[in-house]
Amino acid sequence: MPIVSKKGSLMPQSPIRKLVPYAEKAQKAGKTIYHLNIGQPDIKTPKIALDAVKNNSLEILAYSRSEGSETYRQKIADYYAKNDIHVKHDDIIVTTGGSEALLFAFGSIMDVDDEVIIPEPFYANYNGFSTSSGVTIVPVVSKIDDNFALPPIEEFEKLITPKTKAILICNPGNPTGYLYSKEEIKKLAAIVKKHDLFLIADEVYREFTYDGLEHYSILQVEGLEENAIVIDSVSKRYSMCGARIGCLVSKNKTLIQTALKFAQARLSPPTFAQIASEAALETPQSYFDAVITEYVDRRNTLISELQKIDGVKVGTPKGAFYCIAELPVKNTDRFAQWLLEDFDVNGETIMVAPAAGFYSTPGVGLNQVRIAYVLNKESLIKSVQILKEALKVYKD
Amino acid sequence: MPIVSKKGSLMPQSPIRKLVPYAEKAQKAGKTIYHLNIGQPDIKTPKIALDAVKNNSLEILAYSRSEGSETYRQKIADYYAKNDIHVKHDDIIVTTGGSEALLFAFGSIMDVDDEVIIPEPFYANYNGFSTSSGVTIVPVVSKIDDNFALPPIEEFEKLITPKTKAILICNPGNPTGYLYSKEEIKKLAAIVKKHDLFLIADEVYREFTYDGLEHYSILQVEGLEENAIVIDSVSKRYSMCGARIGCLVSKNKTLIQTALKFAQARLSPPTFAQIASEAALETPQSYFDAVITEYVDRRNTLISELQKIDGVKVGTPKGAFYCIAELPVKNTDRFAQWLLEDFDVNGETIMVAPAAGFYSTPGVGLNQVRIAYVLNKESLIKSVQILKEALKVYKD
Repeated sequence: MPIVSKKGSLMPQSPIRKLVPYAEKAQKAGKTIYHLNIGQPDIKTPKIALDAVKNNSLEILAYSRSEGSETYRQKIADYYAKNDIHVKHDDIIVTTGGSEALLFAFGSIMDVDDEVIIPEPFYANYNGFSTSSGVTIVPVVSKIDDNFALPPIEEFEKLITPKTKAILICNPGNPTGYLYSKEEIKKLAAIVKKHDLFLIADEVYREFTYDGLEHYSILQVEGLEENAIVIDSVSKRYSMCGARIGCLVSKNKTLIQTALKFAQARLSPPTFAQIASEAALETPQSYFDAVITEYVDRRNTLISELQKIDGVKVGTPKGAFYCIAELPVKNTDRFAQWLLEDFDVNGETIMVAPAAGFYSTPGVGLNQVRIAYVLNKESLIKSVQILKEALKVYKD
Repeated sequence: MPIVSKKGSLMPQSPIRKLVPYAEKAQKAGKTIYHLNIGQPDIKTPKIALDAVKNNSLEILAYSRSEGSETYRQKIADYYAKNDIHVKHDDIIVTTGGSEALLFAFGSIMDVDDEVIIPEPFYANYNGFSTSSGVTIVPVVSKIDDNFALPPIEEFEKLITPKTKAILICNPGNPTGYLYSKEEIKKLAAIVKKHDLFLIADEVYREFTYDGLEHYSILQVEGLEENAIVIDSVSKRYSMCGARIGCLVSKNKTLIQTALKFAQARLSPPTFAQIASEAALETPQSYFDAVITEYVDRRNTLISELQKIDGVKVGTPKGAFYCIAELPVKNTDRFAQWLLEDFDVNGETIMVAPAAGFYSTPGVGLNQVRIAYVLNKESLIKSVQILKEALKVYKD
C-alpha cells in the first residue's frame, strides 16, 4: 500500500479543528454552544459587495488574470493611498485569500529548512504553511504580562542564523489583539535591513484598531521598500471570509515577479469573489464606524467581565477581535474538550480555542485560551458567565 | 538586499505567458489575434449555475467547511455515480480549482526530492506544481506518431526508483487530446499496485470524449482503491474556469485525512463559486450534447485543415479540446513570437502555445505547438489559413 509523505504526516491540525467532533456531538445532544473559538464575524457583509455579484452580467465565468484584474488592483492601490500607503497596482498580486498570499511569500523567499522568526503566540495556520513549505518557524516569546508587546529586539537578533530569511508579524495580532507601535515597527525595520531579511506583515486586521490608535504599516517605513511584504485580505475587513480574496503587496520587483510565477501556475483567483471585493472597496465609512463601535463595545464588555473572574488574567487588545486569556487550569486542551463534553449551564456551553496551538515552543500557553469577540454583547456576557461557572467546578 | 529563494528562481514560467507581452504589443499595434493558445472556452456557462449565484440570499459571506459543504460533496458523489464511479461524499475534498487538488495530492504523498513519473507532453503547470512542492518530474516520452498513446509499460518500470511515489496522467490529455483506453488504465493500475505507488489521474476533461469513445476512470479499477487519486474541476466541464472549484477524490482514507490538513490550513474554498458549482450539477444533458457536437465539429475542421498543409503532422485527438501539431520549423518558441511580432494577413495573426514547455526532456517538442480548438469553426479555418501563409514565408 502506498504511504503518505513525511510532510503530510507532520502537517498540524488547527487547535480549533481538533475540538470540532466534540462540538458536533454536543450539538447533536441538544446543547447550545457559544462559539468564541473562531474568527468568523457575525457582522453583515456590505450590501454593495453582495449586490455587485447578484447584478453581474457574465455569460462566461472566465479566468481572470493570474495577478488579478488591473482595475481591481488599481482600486486596491487607491484604497492603500487613502490609508497613507503608497503603492502601484503592479506592486500587488491578488490571491485566493491571505492564506495563498502567505504561501506565495514563503515559496518566493524560502527554500526547504530556511527559517522565519515569528513572535508567538501567532496565528496557528502559520504552522501549516511552514510545514507545507518545508520551512522552520523560530519563535520569540511575547508575554501576556507585557500585553504581548514586541519582545526586545535583541531576542530576535539572537535567533538570526544564515538560514533566517524573514521575520513575520501579524499586526494587529491574531490571537493577541496587540497593535504594534510605529516605534516597534521601526525597530523591526532596522533589524531586517541590517541582516538583509524580508519583513512580512500580515495586516488583514488593519481597520480594527481601537482607543484612537492608528495602524502603522510596514509599507510606510521609508527605506524598507526592498524588504517589506504585506499580506492582506478582504475576509475580516468586509466580513466576507468566504470570498477567498487577499493580496500580496511589495515594492520589491524581483519578489513580485517571483510570486507571480506561483500565481500563474494556479491560473487565477476566483472571479465572482473579485467582483464582490472590487465593489466592497466602495463601502461607506459609516459601515466601518458602526463595526468599530460594535467591536470596541464587545471588547470592553468581554475584558471587564473576564477580569471579574478570580484567577483569570487577560490583556487589553488594541486591535483585531481576539484576546488571549490565562485561566486557572493546567491544560486548556482538556478544559475546552470538557466544556463541550461534560459541562453546561441550562443546556448552554462555550467553545474556546486552546492557545497551545498558537505557540510553537512546546509547553507554552497550556493555560491560555484565545477568545474571539465575534458575538453580540449579550452572548458575550452569557459566555463569560458560563466560563465562570465552569471554572468553579472544573478539576484538572 | 534580501534575495528570493532558489525555488522561486526555478519556478518555470508557463510557455504561453512568455508570449503575452508580444501579444499585448501586437494588439496595441491594431492586430487581431486568434487565440489558439489557451484553454479558455468560448462556450457559455450554464445559466443554472450563473443564476444560482445571482439569486443567492447570503447576508454574511462566511467560510464554508474546509473540505467543502456536505450537500455539495454529496451531489458530487451523485454525479460520479451517474458516471459509474462509486465514491462517498467523504472521499471528496472540494478545492480551489484542480490546481489546488494537485498541490494537496503532491504535498500529501511526496517529500522534497521525491519523484513522480509523467508521460510527456503534459500540462505545463505540472512543472510549476512540482517545483513549488520540491519534487522531481521524471518524464516518459509519448510520441506524435503513436497519437500520444500510453508508452510501453516497461518504459515506466525502468524509471521507478525508491524515490518514486506516483505516476500522474491527464486523461483525456491536455495537451495531446489522447484518451487512454481501459486496457491502458489497467496496465497503469497493475504497475502502481506492484510498486506501491499512487496513480494520480487528472480527469477534468472527462466529458469531452469523441467518436463514441467512453472515458474510463482510475476510480473504476477494482482493487485500486488505496492507490487512486483523482483530480477534478468544474472549469472545463461547465465552462466556468473563473469559479476556481475543483476536487480531490480518493477512497484511501489516510490520503484524504492528510489532504484535509492542507485544506484546513487554507480555511475554505470560495463560497460563491461553490454555489455556482453545486447548481451546475443540474445542467441538462442537452447542454453537454450541444457542446460535444460543437467540439467534434471544430476538431474535425481543425484537423482536416491542418492536414492540408505540407509538412504539418497532427494526431487525431479523441478527447479534451487540444491537439499537438508538428510544424516544419526548427523552434516554435521563435516561430510563435514571430507570428505575433512580424506577421499578419490583413491585420490578423494567430497565437499558439509552443510545445517545448509541455515536455520536461530538454530539446524535445521544439518543432511542435499546442492548438486549442476553443474558437468557432470560422475562426479556426481562418487561423489555419494564417498558419499556412506564415509557414510559406517564415525562415528559421
